[in-house]
Amino acid sequence: MLLANKKVLITGGAGFIGSNLAQRLVSLGADVTLIDSLIPEYGGNLHNLHAIAEQVKLNISDVRDPHSMKYLVRDVDIVFNLAGQTSHMDSMHDPFTDLEINSRAQLSILEALRHNNPTARVIFASTRQIYGRPDFLPVSEAHPLRPVDVNGINKISGESYHLLYQQVYGIPTCALRLTNTYGPCMRIRDARQTFVGIWIRRLLEGEPFEVWGGEQLRDFNYVDDVVDAFIVAAINPKACGKIFNLGSKEIISLSKLAELLVNLNKEGCYHIHEFPPERKKIDIGDYYSDFSLIEQELEWQPRTNLRIGLMQTLDYFRLHGEHYL
Amino acid sequence: MLLANKKVLITGGAGFIGSNLAQRLVSLGADVTLIDSLIPEYGGNLHNLHAIAEQVKLNISDVRDPHSMKYLVRDVDIVFNLAGQTSHMDSMHDPFTDLEINSRAQLSILEALRHNNPTARVIFASTRQIYGRPDFLPVSEAHPLRPVDVNGINKISGESYHLLYQQVYGIPTCALRLTNTYGPCMRIRDARQTFVGIWIRRLLEGEPFEVWGGEQLRDFNYVDDVVDAFIVAAINPKACGKIFNLGSKEIISLSKLAELLVNLNKEGCYHIHEFPPERKKIDIGDYYSDFSLIEQELEWQPRTNLRIGLMQTLDYFRLHGEHYL
Repeated sequence: MLLANKKVLITGGAGFIGSNLAQRLVSLGADVTLIDSLIPEYGGNLHNLHAIAEQVKLNISDVRDPHSMKYLVRDVDIVFNLAGQTSHMDSMHDPFTDLEINSRAQLSILEALRHNNPTARVIFASTRQIYGRPDFLPVSEAHPLRPVDVNGINKISGESYHLLYQQVYGIPTCALRLTNTYGPCMRIRDARQTFVGIWIRRLLEGEPFEVWGGEQLRDFNYVDDVVDAFIVAAINPKACGKIFNLGSKEIISLSKLAELLVNLNKEGCYHIHEFPPERKKIDIGDYYSDFSLIEQELEWQPRTNLRIGLMQTLDYFRLHGEHYL
Repeated sequence: MLLANKKVLITGGAGFIGSNLAQRLVSLGADVTLIDSLIPEYGGNLHNLHAIAEQVKLNISDVRDPHSMKYLVRDVDIVFNLAGQTSHMDSMHDPFTDLEINSRAQLSILEALRHNNPTARVIFASTRQIYGRPDFLPVSEAHPLRPVDVNGINKISGESYHLLYQQVYGIPTCALRLTNTYGPCMRIRDARQTFVGIWIRRLLEGEPFEVWGGEQLRDFNYVDDVVDAFIVAAINPKACGKIFNLGSKEIISLSKLAELLVNLNKEGCYHIHEFPPERKKIDIGDYYSDFSLIEQELEWQPRTNLRIGLMQTLDYFRLHGEHYL
């Protein structure tokens, strides 16, 4: 399947990964429609679309609204389903909103597809957060799911509905379990999307940033590599009905990551803190993925090393940061 | 913990297992309040309470209503949380209602407890349905969860919220994963609660009943044994934060079960059919539980053999069947 002239829908299309994916799809000649609620606490930001505003259709609506979704999923070839509530802390303070977005809205998108467009390819953005504290490393797709917050529980439902609708109704769905993703267009205003966001904001503002713990190991994917994964999952029929981890071979502790960022920025500083009790309850210790399944089945590999990815990210926010505060 | 004078709340208290549990708790001297929505498609039936109507408080309300729940969970010592949508087929035809009851309402009960009564013991009725098609038999609690219908996905959320609220907020919860339960007070009008219900209805009406497949192995628990399990889970502190399978050592194929029922009833007949396609998609093949964990930790074992349990069930419905049609 080539993507030129394919009708593509991206939910969460003005968000971090959605907007990067939209840029790639435009460059590949796809006919791109974006859905975004532009809720200020989430990832949508119109500046993310500044380079492609004339080449995409933006439909401002909420995936929780089943009526707009019913109409919007008709006649599209591919749905990249990225809309979600991503904040772990918000999911504990307001678990119902997290449920509405990460579970109920997913069911309503799938019901809309089942009744109106059951042959569309659907790629769902899932998360490594659903594994919880790892039993073993690297974490493969077979690792038990033991979510440590409401967000993880609801993301499991969202992912499971996608797989179920493939098994029962034949809708060709696939789920990618993303690990920490960073890059241009991410939310840096606060830590709602990723802690790397707020680190970068503080760095560029010349303020010290906070590192909680520090020794935990993590893997990071640059957003371009994640976009690659969404594309290969959409065009390769072998992806249908499957779940794939993304990941990276560059494993790094949070304190080393902080050091690297300060070095790349030429200046800055950070403080290492003990976890506050509220946060400690939902921390997962070390985490990194086994992504050999997607390597073998879809021939995906991350291409961007961490140093270069972070440098590009810093460059982007030096230039565009004012639109993200 | 003794149960005499303990304040106990049972959601789904007019239902099959809820009403049997209520009878036991009354006999143990507990102060019992029942919540039931009495929605005709679900398990609630006022006749289930005929023997204890004067000894319990019945509050007719829906667990989806967060306002009544907030009030009702105050000051109770134990919550037996049994309200649920149980029909697998209904969950596919109307997935949103299943989500509202099996996921959202569970979250709202737990939020009510967290804010109003965080020390209450909570025993949640989960189901073996969440395992899906078994990888190995007997199925232990460590078996991966691969639900084959929307009901299974939403029950996983409901169960996971319970465990999470124990880990994060210290609410002493426990989940029992029930296998096929049968006995007096079950729904026999149709197969919404269990296929055994409709078999018994047809038998007593002198009509042939339908067996789908027939070779699948299953385990069955008589409702008194399931009531035992809820009681031991409520009084033993070792149950807190844990998940336990229920099960039986008497494993039987569906066709043998049908034969046994006909023999016990002295007359009757059944037809074995191929699965209809809609049903086949969500069938799980053979299933029986490994319940050694609850045997070891809480010293629970089923006491009623299948022949005696079925005989008592037939006797009950011969006498009371008119109230269940």
